[in-house]
Amino acid sequence: MAENEMGLTVKKDEDFSEWYTQILNKADLSDIRFGIQGFIVQKPWAYMIIRKIYDYLEKEVEMQGHLPYRFPTVVKEKDLMKEEEHAGFTPEVFWVSEAGDKKIEERFALRPTGEAQIYPMYSLWFRSYRDLPFLAYQSRNSVFRNEMTTRPFIRGREFMFFESHNVYNEHQEALDQIKKDLETCDEVIKKKAKIPFYYFKRPQWDKFLGADDTFTPDTVMPDGKRNQLGSTHDLGTNFAKAYDIKIRAKDGKQQLAFQTCFGPGIWRIFAAMVGIHGDDNGLVLPFDFAPVQVVIVPIIFSKKKELTEKVLTMCKKLETDIRKMGYKVKLDDRDYESPGAKYNHWELKGVPMRLEVGPKEVDEKVVSLKLRTGGDKEKVNVSDLKKVIGSKALELDKEIEVRAQKYFKGNVREAKTLKELVKIMKEHRGFVKVPFCSVEMDGEKCEEEMKAETQGGRVCGTLYPKEDKVAKGQKCMVCGKEAKHMVYIAKSY
Amino acid sequence: MAENEMGLTVKKDEDFSEWYTQILNKADLSDIRFGIQGFIVQKPWAYMIIRKIYDYLEKEVEMQGHLPYRFPTVVKEKDLMKEEEHAGFTPEVFWVSEAGDKKIEERFALRPTGEAQIYPMYSLWFRSYRDLPFLAYQSRNSVFRNEMTTRPFIRGREFMFFESHNVYNEHQEALDQIKKDLETCDEVIKKKAKIPFYYFKRPQWDKFLGADDTFTPDTVMPDGKRNQLGSTHDLGTNFAKAYDIKIRAKDGKQQLAFQTCFGPGIWRIFAAMVGIHGDDNGLVLPFDFAPVQVVIVPIIFSKKKELTEKVLTMCKKLETDIRKMGYKVKLDDRDYESPGAKYNHWELKGVPMRLEVGPKEVDEKVVSLKLRTGGDKEKVNVSDLKKVIGSKALELDKEIEVRAQKYFKGNVREAKTLKELVKIMKEHRGFVKVPFCSVEMDGEKCEEEMKAETQGGRVCGTLYPKEDKVAKGQKCMVCGKEAKHMVYIAKSY
Repeated sequence: MAENEMGLTVKKDEDFSEWYTQILNKADLSDIRFGIQGFIVQKPWAYMIIRKIYDYLEKEVEMQGHLPYRFPTVVKEKDLMKEEEHAGFTPEVFWVSEAGDKKIEERFALRPTGEAQIYPMYSLWFRSYRDLPFLAYQSRNSVFRNEMTTRPFIRGREFMFFESHNVYNEHQEALDQIKKDLETCDEVIKKKAKIPFYYFKRPQWDKFLGADDTFTPDTVMPDGKRNQLGSTHDLGTNFAKAYDIKIRAKDGKQQLAFQTCFGPGIWRIFAAMVGIHGDDNGLVLPFDFAPVQVVIVPIIFSKKKELTEKVLTMCKKLETDIRKMGYKVKLDDRDYESPGAKYNHWELKGVPMRLEVGPKEVDEKVVSLKLRTGGDKEKVNVSDLKKVIGSKALELDKEIEVRAQKYFKGNVREAKTLKELVKIMKEHRGFVKVPFCSVEMDGEKCEEEMKAETQGGRVCGTLYPKEDKVAKGQKCMVCGKEAKHMVYIAKSY
Repeated sequence: MAENEMGLTVKKDEDFSEWYTQILNKADLSDIRFGIQGFIVQKPWAYMIIRKIYDYLEKEVEMQGHLPYRFPTVVKEKDLMKEEEHAGFTPEVFWVSEAGDKKIEERFALRPTGEAQIYPMYSLWFRSYRDLPFLAYQSRNSVFRNEMTTRPFIRGREFMFFESHNVYNEHQEALDQIKKDLETCDEVIKKKAKIPFYYFKRPQWDKFLGADDTFTPDTVMPDGKRNQLGSTHDLGTNFAKAYDIKIRAKDGKQQLAFQTCFGPGIWRIFAAMVGIHGDDNGLVLPFDFAPVQVVIVPIIFSKKKELTEKVLTMCKKLETDIRKMGYKVKLDDRDYESPGAKYNHWELKGVPMRLEVGPKEVDEKVVSLKLRTGGDKEKVNVSDLKKVIGSKALELDKEIEVRAQKYFKGNVREAKTLKELVKIMKEHRGFVKVPFCSVEMDGEKCEEEMKAETQGGRVCGTLYPKEDKVAKGQKCMVCGKEAKHMVYIAKSY
């Protein structure tokens, strides 16, 4: 057995950071030895799960009418600078300034995000109100930021991206799309990937530069830190103004277009699946995401060739049959590994179901089925297998969902005073609901004070679309003025 | 109607270059106004076809056991330089040498291809013969080369890539994989995309730097130029030596691994589909590749509201029904365009089937069906539609295939003397089969002479796997020595 497959040597609840590092390595999800900091190799077991996240997202946005575009990996310096507020990115931009042995006259950047490269084209594409609404997205490519600290699937200098960029005649259409983005997150992140989250409206001082409002699905990781799983922004006409995106309205007048953009965090969703669903034995994957859904392990202790043949024949037939049923199945017939080593290996990888087949199973025409989420080993008649795999898959998914919800609820607390908050954040972290004076710019001072006291707590925002009610007479936990909102505090990556 | 939709104003056979430029623009396939030369925006109609090419290729290589990896977009300078012969790329490499306002200590390059970034990782991943064969690929990302001249989907400074990189214990396994790569090209390029091609073994002087042998599927474009649709390389142990890829063999000894790599040219395949299948009215697309397979056009000339409603109701029902049948369907109900303008629009886009529905069709419960490849308009009972769309799709595909084969055959000629060759290449271009002295390094002198005489003719190589026979006594058309091979000459992009 390879050294890196000796199983996790640390418990998730005791040292999440070390657990995460080990699982990346031992479940073979990424390789950080590429030699340029923050640039990693995504290995198949991770990439196939990531691809599934893309599949679901693409399906959702295409059903809404979005069409797939592919823009270059680079962006002109002039375009990047055009939106002044956007220049927030430039300190972390990688510049392409040489080609061969020559300096490039007009250097260009690796794109840190899409707006600055996409919106100059939009200013060429639309003339009339008839050209709108315009719904476009691009996916399965990357963006680049020269981050100081990096961590696979959480923060990289290159990381996987998905973005939709939409243009409308009316502001109401923008607001409607934001609701649809929320539904997309519900469908893919919550229902499919089983990751619970809150949908926040960020405070004004923490919104995307250039946006009127920013909305984010945020979850909490087992180390108690907030994991922002994406964002959708109401851009108003701010970018249209900066990039000159105008149309001739129905009444014949030229007007600025309204815009939204939506970016689910592909890597962050994956990291949440690893971190939240995983346990001390390794990954735990919702059935649909597992690159291998059913693994067959032959149990052969005898040296009798005849017996071995019989078991292997049944295993091979099972593999063919289960593949025909439409499941992703693998027969692990390596002859140099023990059944026990194979169990550990596939548990580490998070394969939802294991079928064991020994001489006894051959005789009885059954398999022994074991679910990754636990429970007893069960004997299943081969003739019932299709039905049982289907129902066991639902059982596994339900169990993953219930565990994740329980975990998430256990990470939400309440505090009424700053002192209480400080105490909670020292002991638990996670989300803490508190009364707060304002989520407009005038609230930022209170965040600063709170941040200092809690060593890094941030205001995530108010719940969206339905904000928590503020009880009468509640005071802002920092300044003591009337609390206008219940906000959530968390430390962030 | 937008200006760029006024139809093609040039015939493909008269000025292919202008036809190609017009179709890119008028069928809305790409936008070259991104502002950095050689970096284009791929628009949905092109990208959805390209995505289909990827879908097919991924399915084929995964059935063979390849797993999907995702490597960074960049490569270390040291790794790029490691394989000296590989340094062939460095004059056209883009360098990332600044981040924010600082110079990067060890600059890195945008990857010009995969070997130099992938093989250093391979040297870390394999220890034992048990780790091989190793079949990996990556797809849907790009590579970057500072080309002097660029043309959308033919040559770009950034272009879409697909590559598999495989490692073996034995050389025979490498040769077997090359045969499978050929089968993949057959399946996807020839059978699915209906592009005829020759499979060549390149002469030794024109192989991939560092390879023992290079094999390519080459077709010919309507301007008579060769379009290389991909390549697969027998790398022997050359790269294993350069990048230190060693394993412990069964006998316990350390040995260098054998390698192959395979890269179908995604853009080139797309360009061939545009150029070869297209006609003077626009794109012609094989049924499976069309982003819209069936378009429904309501025919309403009357001003009677009731009649309009009746027609639109039937059209909407048809759209729903045809979607349920599993076809990609679009109802063009724009009220500001005439039916004729819509016909032209969707012919330009290459939609395989058009269904017209007017008041008469409503009364008779029929639709009028017109195929993009021509033939009469046919009345089809609505109740027969599913069956008829299926059979018409086959008819269309067959017609595209037959036309492409006829076209390809018409672009292959033979010559016995240099004078004949020069004459043919002046009048027709395409492939010319000629007797040639050698495809080893000693043949290069003859190519140089031939190239000068024909103003750019190149030796494509010998047919693979079954070479043409050389008639007894044939002489090399250039040097007059005994001809050992029949080779094919063509001008290239």
